[in-house]
This record gives sequence, structure tokens and C-alpha cells, in this order.
Amino acid sequence: MPALAPVFPPVDEQLAYLIKGAAELIGEPELRQRLERSRQTGVPLRVKAGFDPTAPDLHLGHTVLLRKLKHFQDLGHEIFFLIGDFTGRIGDPSGRSETRPALTTEQVNANAETYRAQVFQLLDRERTQVVFNSAWMEALPAAEIVRLCSKFTVARMLERDDFHLRFSNNQPISIHEFLYPLVQAYDSVALRADVELGGTDQKFNLLLGREIQREYGQPPQVVLTMPLLEGLDGVRKMSKSLGNYAGIAEPAGTMYAKLMSISDELMWRYWLLLTDRGEADIAALKADVAAGRVHPMQVKKDLAAQVTADFHGAEGARAAGAEFQRVVQRHEAPAELAEVRLQAPAGGAEFRLDKELARHGCAPSVSEAARLIKAGSVSLDGESWRQLTLPSQPARTMLLKVGKRYFATLVIESQPKA
Amino acid sequence: MPALAPVFPPVDEQLAYLIKGAAELIGEPELRQRLERSRQTGVPLRVKAGFDPTAPDLHLGHTVLLRKLKHFQDLGHEIFFLIGDFTGRIGDPSGRSETRPALTTEQVNANAETYRAQVFQLLDRERTQVVFNSAWMEALPAAEIVRLCSKFTVARMLERDDFHLRFSNNQPISIHEFLYPLVQAYDSVALRADVELGGTDQKFNLLLGREIQREYGQPPQVVLTMPLLEGLDGVRKMSKSLGNYAGIAEPAGTMYAKLMSISDELMWRYWLLLTDRGEADIAALKADVAAGRVHPMQVKKDLAAQVTADFHGAEGARAAGAEFQRVVQRHEAPAELAEVRLQAPAGGAEFRLDKELARHGCAPSVSEAARLIKAGSVSLDGESWRQLTLPSQPARTMLLKVGKRYFATLVIESQPKA
Repeated sequence: MPALAPVFPPVDEQLAYLIKGAAELIGEPELRQRLERSRQTGVPLRVKAGFDPTAPDLHLGHTVLLRKLKHFQDLGHEIFFLIGDFTGRIGDPSGRSETRPALTTEQVNANAETYRAQVFQLLDRERTQVVFNSAWMEALPAAEIVRLCSKFTVARMLERDDFHLRFSNNQPISIHEFLYPLVQAYDSVALRADVELGGTDQKFNLLLGREIQREYGQPPQVVLTMPLLEGLDGVRKMSKSLGNYAGIAEPAGTMYAKLMSISDELMWRYWLLLTDRGEADIAALKADVAAGRVHPMQVKKDLAAQVTADFHGAEGARAAGAEFQRVVQRHEAPAELAEVRLQAPAGGAEFRLDKELARHGCAPSVSEAARLIKAGSVSLDGESWRQLTLPSQPARTMLLKVGKRYFATLVIESQPKA
Repeated sequence: MPALAPVFPPVDEQLAYLIKGAAELIGEPELRQRLERSRQTGVPLRVKAGFDPTAPDLHLGHTVLLRKLKHFQDLGHEIFFLIGDFTGRIGDPSGRSETRPALTTEQVNANAETYRAQVFQLLDRERTQVVFNSAWMEALPAAEIVRLCSKFTVARMLERDDFHLRFSNNQPISIHEFLYPLVQAYDSVALRADVELGGTDQKFNLLLGREIQREYGQPPQVVLTMPLLEGLDGVRKMSKSLGNYAGIAEPAGTMYAKLMSISDELMWRYWLLLTDRGEADIAALKADVAAGRVHPMQVKKDLAAQVTADFHGAEGARAAGAEFQRVVQRHEAPAELAEVRLQAPAGGAEFRLDKELARHGCAPSVSEAARLIKAGSVSLDGESWRQLTLPSQPARTMLLKVGKRYFATLVIESQPKA
């Protein structure tokens, strides 16, 4: 916390920045009131977002929410990065869900460290409260859990989309699964949250926080949901398993090149969700491109540089841009890279890279492709690949170079889920 | 506990005594095995029954379950009289149910004392463990409640008759109501119960105890359900609100007279559920009556004396029998008393006793009935009633005497519930 009370910008100005890119704001009048009050009192808003302690290897999709936290922080508000370790330590003891293994305290702590290392690339370490909900949940007596459960009905819980679907399909729902949204809601009580942020898929839980806060005599939190970010393909949401992601820990050159591989249309979405640039600015930029005053390639380079700089610093971003310029543009690669999509075969077999290169027209024949590979003239993400086979797992996106002139985005897709 | 290990009777003999009058035994093979093992090891079975801490004013209907506990105790087993104070202290914090007010610790303790005073008329005080589930539930961490809830599904909980009905009718069910059966089941884990007793309406919860014990690595408890006792009217279950009850704290004379007012058919049911007499004995008695070797009036007197003695001692029962003989039989009242039923009028208005007596043929006319009342010649439960009006509440059964010769059972019924 800074030593002096923050001076908050005018409410309209704050609001414009805060709702940029948001999917939905529930409680706008309350948000205005609270922003106004914080201007008068100098007391910042308390802004909460919850994170699962299981998956700390972040990609750009995760940064949409983190960036919104940053926006609140930029304005002088107090942000709570909540790690849901109480539920994480319990996991799914019924063993019905594979995605909820119970974590040990050591695992949770290790994951929290990994989180910290990553999120403080965006957030101000000094002004971010990293909190664990076990801090209050473990001390909570069983009777208080029962009381908490009395505040909500079975029928209303079954209105949550996923519960509704499973219930209708006669798929089992363990009773403890009803407790987790209530615990998340109680976290808002424990933190006296003014605002909770989450993905659009979290809306039910965030609204439950409002109700539970009311039950505990607190004014209900404002709810701000952020959309799920489309992946590099511009179609499906960014996800590791789909291979259409850029990880924030990937090398600067890779991140830059991946960002340069997106379509012009998706670029505007990324400007909105992956930068701090205001909506008016972005609209002006778009108008400049439409009027031919700026080349879209230049705008995309600016985007790639700006996002890369967030995670690799200005110098890292500059070097990545220069390298991209050197390897791609010197050889007159097209402004939008070609895309080679490989679908992983069933059973996790490897690809025959020589055959795939020939099949996708990256080399004139299978034998020529094999020759290029053996000669070290085929590279993936800048490194020569000298084997004829290529693992089909995990799903990933790489920059492919064949010979001196051919560049493409190589997208390795996982098997579609049944 | 006796200083010497108990010597348990043969298994078949125990079983015959234990299932006398029971509605259902679930786990008979397991019960046999455990009885056999306790004979070999000298270690008694652990037998649990749970009681609500709210309603400690017992009537004979409640004694059916207590007596079954006594039967286990008679055989040398260890019984746990469990007072569900954890749930009782929480009540229904959603305020949806009027029957579940939250109790203070003082109220729970006061109710427990009242329980003790009553149940030890049947049970051996020295060998009864009175336990409160708050002892383990209050120390239970919230995480353990979550784990407990993971052991059962929403769909299966909704199979419980009352939940199913309410859910189908769109009546709200608070989520904490799902927790109470799980807490009751966990009580069996905490007590390592071999057997749990309950009314037939408790079957779902008792079976849940079996499942939850399995989940916690314990052999599942045997479940023994007892039927609900019919009231003095022989039709509906005994209940205070229906007025067809005999309270165990009522005077010996009243209890005796009420028992004498039941039908010959109901008498056999009461022998089964309100005494320790074995089924074979009762069958023999019934055969004697059928063959005319014993007068049913004598068998009913024996029943009334035996039940009254349980709560007022042998001397109290003898005196009550003598008094009954004096006031009823000296005046040649019929062996089965006439029954006068008055239905409480809507709005709780009073009866005009003179009119009711005339209408039911207890007096030749309204004016004669009024004269007898004013002269002190009408008595209720042995006390003169000199008013022309009679409160219609609460529902109750009294011995009515009009003039010197007319006796009847006066049953005041409550309004039928909507």
C-alpha cells in the first residue's frame, strides 16, 4: 500500500477503464456509488478474484482476468488474489471428477509460488494481497457451514447450468459440489469484497456471493465478468489442450511470432482484452486502418510488442520484434503466415514430418522434405528439427520454417474430446 | 457397566426378543454374526437411537423405541441414548420450518434433564450412555463436513420421501436440510454403532448411516425400525395433538383408566409394543382368551397394571387398579367403557357440556344434564366439573362420570389438520 491515500480519478473515467472488454457488469449503480464514496473517503474498493490452485501455468487467456484486476489496481484500488486452497485441498473426495485431485499443503504452496512468479509480471507485487481461503475456512466450525447452507435452496442450486445439465442427464452430483459455490460466496463475506471478477462461466457463483453477503448483513458485491479469450485460431477459447495458446512463460520470440500469426480481425479483440489501451484509442486505431492511414501489419506488430513487453520487458519485446523481422520479413514471408494444421492421430502415434510437409505443400515431395530435414533446413520455433518423426503430443503451436523462405504457423491439435 | 462381562443368551433367543414388535430388520445375517461374536468375546453390541432435543414430554408412543433400547440393555448390550443437540442448536436458520427453532445450550441441557428423568423410568440409568452429538460435531472441521457431503449424491437424497414430495411440489428445500441426515449418519461413525433403532419414518436416515459407515471403513450398522404406535382410538398414531395419547407423566389412575378404555383388538398391539412380554407368551394369552379360559377384561387389567407399573411402580399400579375397580366396576359399568367423542369446533370455541351430554345420551335432557353438572354429579378424571362449558382445547381423553352409574371415555378431538 502506498503511504499516501490514493487520489482516485473521476467516476466516469474509472468506469470507462473498468468496463473495457468486460462481458457484463452487474450492479453499475452500486459501483458508481462505491467509486464515488472511495473518492470522498480515500478508502479504496476491495476487489476479489479467485483462482484454482491446480493450474498455475498461465497463458494469455488467463491474463484477461488478471489484467482487469490490474486495472482496478492502476486506479488505486485494493486487489485480492484469492487462491482457493480450501477446496483445492479437499478436491473431489468422491473420486467422480478427475479434474479435482486433492492437493497437499506442499503442492498448494508450490503452486502459489508459481502463481506469484507469473502474476506479478502484470500486477504490482507490493499492492497485491495474495490470500488463501483456508485461512478462514479451516477455522470455520461445522455449524457455520450448516448455517451457510441454510441460506440457499436445492432447486436454485440446480439452476446452475452445469448442475442442471447433469441432473437432467441423471449424472451424479455429489452433495459437496453444492458446498463449493457457497464457500466461494462466503469468501466474499470473509474479504468484505466490494467487487468480484470472474469469467462469464463464473456468473452464477459470483451472483451467489451477492446473496450470501446480503444474508450476512453486507452490501452485495458488484459483479464484473470477463469474456473467455479466443485462441490464436480465433475460433475456440484459448486452451492448452486445444494447442491454440501462447503461454506467458514461452520465449519472447515465440510469443511475438504467435501473436503475429493471428488474423486482423482477432487482433482488435486482443487489443481490447490483452492490453491497457482504452476503447476510444482502439476505435481510433481501427479507423486509421480502415482509412488506409496505418497498415494493419504495423498495428499487429505494435500489439505483439506491447503484449510481449508485459512478460519479457521492453528490451525482450524489441529483440523479439527484430528477430521476427529478420527471419520472416527479410525472406518476404507473407504478412499473415500460412497455417499448417496437423490433427494428432488416435493412440498418440507420431507424425511422419516428411510426409506431412509434402502433403501440406511445404516441400515439393516427401523425399525432398526428408532431405531438408536431415540437412537441418527445417526448424521449429527457431531450432533445427532433424528427425523424420515429430511427437503428436502435446497440442501446441510453433513457428515452422522450411528451407530459407517458407514460413508457417504449425498447429498441432489434440484429438477432439468425445 | 457391570463389573463382570455379561453372559449373553443364545443368539436365537436374543433375536426373538429383539425383533418382537419390530417393523423391519435390515441386516439380519450381520446381526446374528455380531450377536455370536459378542457371545464369544464378551463385548456387547453398541446400540444407538437418536432423539430430538426439542420435545421431551413423552407419551406411550415414544416408549416403543425406548423399550426396544431396553430390550438390548436387558440382554447385556451397550445402549447410546443420543440427543441430537448439534442440529437442535442450529435449528432451521432459514426460518422456513417452524418446527425447528434454534435452541440455546441452556434449553438443550434443560430438555436433556427432562429426558433423563423420563427415560430412566424404563432404562437402567447406570448402564445407559447419554451422549450429545455436539461432542464430536462441534470439533469437526468444515473440511470434514465437505468430505462427508462428498459421499452421497443430490439425486439419492431427493429420493427421501419428504424431499421428493417437496421437490416435486416446488416447495423450497434448503441445502442444509441435506446435511442433517448426513450428520445423523456420521453420528453412527462417531459412535461405531453396531445397531441403530428408529421409527419406520427414519428408515432412509438409518440406511444412510450404513452407507456412510462403509465409506469411513466401518462395517455397516444393523437397522431395526419400530412401528408407530396407534393411539387410544386404535386408528391414528398416538400424538398429543390428536388427543389420543397417554402421557408417561400423567397420574397412575389416569394412565390406568386410559389403557382400560382401549379396544380388545388394540390391547394385543399394546401387549406387543408396550411390554417386555415375549411374542409366544402373548400368543398363548390370546389363545386363552379365544378359548374362553380367560376373560379379556382381566387381560386388559393385567396390561394396564403392567404398563402403569413401569412408570408409577408396582404399588402405584395396584392402587390405580383398585381405584378403577371401585369407581367403575362397583357401579357395574360395562367392561368396555362407552366412548363419547367430541370434535373441537372451528375457531377453538368451547363446548356446551350440558348439550353434549344430552346429545350423546349421557343424560335424559339438556336441563337434567345442566342440573347434574351444577349439583357436582358430573366428574372428569375423578374431579367434579361444575361449569356448563368445557374448553375444546387441548385434545385429550378423560374418564367421564355422570350421576352415580354412568361412565364413559370422553375423547376430545382436535380439528382435523388440513
